[in-house]
Amino acid sequence: MTESKFPPPPDKKELETNRELTPRFDKDGLVTAIVTDYENGELLMVAHMNDEALAKTIATGQSHFWSRSRQELWHKGVTSGTTQKVHEIRTDCDQDAIWLKVSVEGSGATCHTGMKSCFYRSVELKDGKAILVRDKIDPLFDPAEIYGNKT
Amino acid sequence: MTESKFPPPPDKKELETNRELTPRFDKDGLVTAIVTDYENGELLMVAHMNDEALAKTIATGQSHFWSRSRQELWHKGVTSGTTQKVHEIRTDCDQDAIWLKVSVEGSGATCHTGMKSCFYRSVELKDGKAILVRDKIDPLFDPAEIYGNKT
Repeated sequence: MTESKFPPPPDKKELETNRELTPRFDKDGLVTAIVTDYENGELLMVAHMNDEALAKTIATGQSHFWSRSRQELWHKGVTSGTTQKVHEIRTDCDQDAIWLKVSVEGSGATCHTGMKSCFYRSVELKDGKAILVRDKIDPLFDPAEIYGNKT
Repeated sequence: MTESKFPPPPDKKELETNRELTPRFDKDGLVTAIVTDYENGELLMVAHMNDEALAKTIATGQSHFWSRSRQELWHKGVTSGTTQKVHEIRTDCDQDAIWLKVSVEGSGATCHTGMKSCFYRSVELKDGKAILVRDKIDPLFDPAEIYGNKT
């Protein structure tokens, strides 16, 4: 375990009022990261950051996350040319969530399915059952072309 | 353990394309819930939902979460009169996050500090160190009046 890149979180009250970024990483060493479109505020994706991903995002101005499935640092968008330029970073009252306002390079897609946002389906009730209704929008790229068989 | 209120999640590909809500709860039985303002898209809060909280949110049209600190179902805003009316629910590609677009009743505050959004501080670099800069906006209520000593 390398030394943390941020000071340890203080007590709850101080977390809400302090002027130092002291992220409250969970037992897996992660905070939640919310990514929205800098221009129109649309929610693009939700991911996670460890200490290193957050520090790299702040230092480089490009979104970095921790991939829980691959268990590795993830410079978002490098494979598909859709890196995220970070315009603003915010944190919440208890500093266990990070909000990035970004613009997306290349095709502008954030989701690995090629859709602009990962949230391309709404939940609706039909006969008392929750169903998903997909937005009538085409993907911005073909995942098979970009990732081959990796998706 | 009571029976789940949703069908079990299928494999990754089907999660992305199916028309049934099959939330992928984590090992603690939770999905991430992102709450934004229905009117202007502002990110208000990030919380978590278990099976019951998600089902109640869908059924009642009012935001319900699972409080990890109190380990109980949490009908958001009941104590402070700031319940959330849910206008739209969306989910992401792998169905482990839920996006609620809401309007907030009463004072309009979402954060227990009285602020409209929990994300009332931005992260800025000063002499190579990440500091937090608080928005110059007053809280919408006084937490001491609403919660007494509970905060």
